[in-house]
Amino acid sequence: MAVPQHAPTTIPKAVVDLAGDGRWMSQHNRFIAETHDKEPEVVFLGDSLIQQLQDTNVWRELFQPLHCLNFGIGGETTQNLLWRIAEGTLDVIKPKVIVLLIGTNNFLNTAGEVAEGILEIVRLIREKQPLSQLLVLELLPRGEKPNRQREKNSHTNQIIREQLRDTPRTAVINLDPGFVAEDGLISPQDMPDYVHLTDKSYRKAFTPLRDIIIRYLDSAELPSTSTQGGLISRDHPADEL
Amino acid sequence: MAVPQHAPTTIPKAVVDLAGDGRWMSQHNRFIAETHDKEPEVVFLGDSLIQQLQDTNVWRELFQPLHCLNFGIGGETTQNLLWRIAEGTLDVIKPKVIVLLIGTNNFLNTAGEVAEGILEIVRLIREKQPLSQLLVLELLPRGEKPNRQREKNSHTNQIIREQLRDTPRTAVINLDPGFVAEDGLISPQDMPDYVHLTDKSYRKAFTPLRDIIIRYLDSAELPSTSTQGGLISRDHPADEL
Repeated sequence: MAVPQHAPTTIPKAVVDLAGDGRWMSQHNRFIAETHDKEPEVVFLGDSLIQQLQDTNVWRELFQPLHCLNFGIGGETTQNLLWRIAEGTLDVIKPKVIVLLIGTNNFLNTAGEVAEGILEIVRLIREKQPLSQLLVLELLPRGEKPNRQREKNSHTNQIIREQLRDTPRTAVINLDPGFVAEDGLISPQDMPDYVHLTDKSYRKAFTPLRDIIIRYLDSAELPSTSTQGGLISRDHPADEL
Repeated sequence: MAVPQHAPTTIPKAVVDLAGDGRWMSQHNRFIAETHDKEPEVVFLGDSLIQQLQDTNVWRELFQPLHCLNFGIGGETTQNLLWRIAEGTLDVIKPKVIVLLIGTNNFLNTAGEVAEGILEIVRLIREKQPLSQLLVLELLPRGEKPNRQREKNSHTNQIIREQLRDTPRTAVINLDPGFVAEDGLISPQDMPDYVHLTDKSYRKAFTPLRDIIIRYLDSAELPSTSTQGGLISRDHPADEL
């Protein structure tokens, strides 16, 4: 009888330190230390797209004032982020909002496997932080021209939108401001290496996220229950925080 | 009889497109197109440390006005950059100054092999651009704590300093402003992921490079020969450009 297989994307896994410089673990340990020293209202989790956001003007202007901590690490896959969360990243703090962007580095996995990895992270975050609002960012397109990885990211987004539609306090958000032009190309002005963003394109993509975060920060103060339609679903207030 | 082996770091090699998004080739092709459209005075070649420099304020303020083109690609090794140069990156333009920073991604190679790779790139650049001034930047330290990769980068620097001491129009330059503190640690303020720089730390490290470049741009206009000691060596003027 076949035993159900878990996709490799759902198994927590520390990064193998091929370079031997300990960078990944240094970052994880620093983030853990920060959770003991600080009381963030908002936490960002993810890969280089989250990490590099921290050194932009849009971060300094729009997000830093909201008491955000950035726990992004470049190169991470779903299994690496799972490991970090399993190992304490969310154990001490009580953020009102958690922002998640992960999966584009799982390029060797299928869309279904990447989605499974993201859903497992969502499950773990919901378990660790049942009262916080989770904002799952859809994967962005990548590559100058149409390519299989872009299609896969798009397919992954479709799966997580469907699967998370009714998950309490969890919203799937598309921040893509239209990086793919009508001719199918992504401009190097937006993505010089066709995967990472510039200061300017971070502003284009992430500015709307601030209003969404503020809405949840405000509603976390309120005792009333409000439900919003579309991809944003939430079934009870976060006033306990 | 033993046949002399060339280190793998010295063999031009295109990046294998594991993600299937064509990003690397898109960037190479864009750079080649730029060499047909533009007449840069200065060209930067290297990995992500060069590439990310382009989206900083220090680049916009200090380097862009000097007519610089940035041909950095994230993740590159010496063999990848060798391929790009062999395939035309320097065939059309006549820059007065070329800045090179490569090697820290060759973490699976020995210091000797990394140095061989860098020296092979220098040889190829000298062949393609005999009249330009080449500025070889020393590898920066990496990792939060002392580690074997830091030692290796340091050893690689030592080898290239020795080997390039008498190479015409080629200078080895150390831009490290002291990223490693007395306790042996690198601050996340300077390197959030312990290898890449922030806008601020790029300014700390790269500001002195502007004056060095300007010196060579100016001297390229002069008919006289001047030789400078130390690590900067140059044996004939670049006024032909």
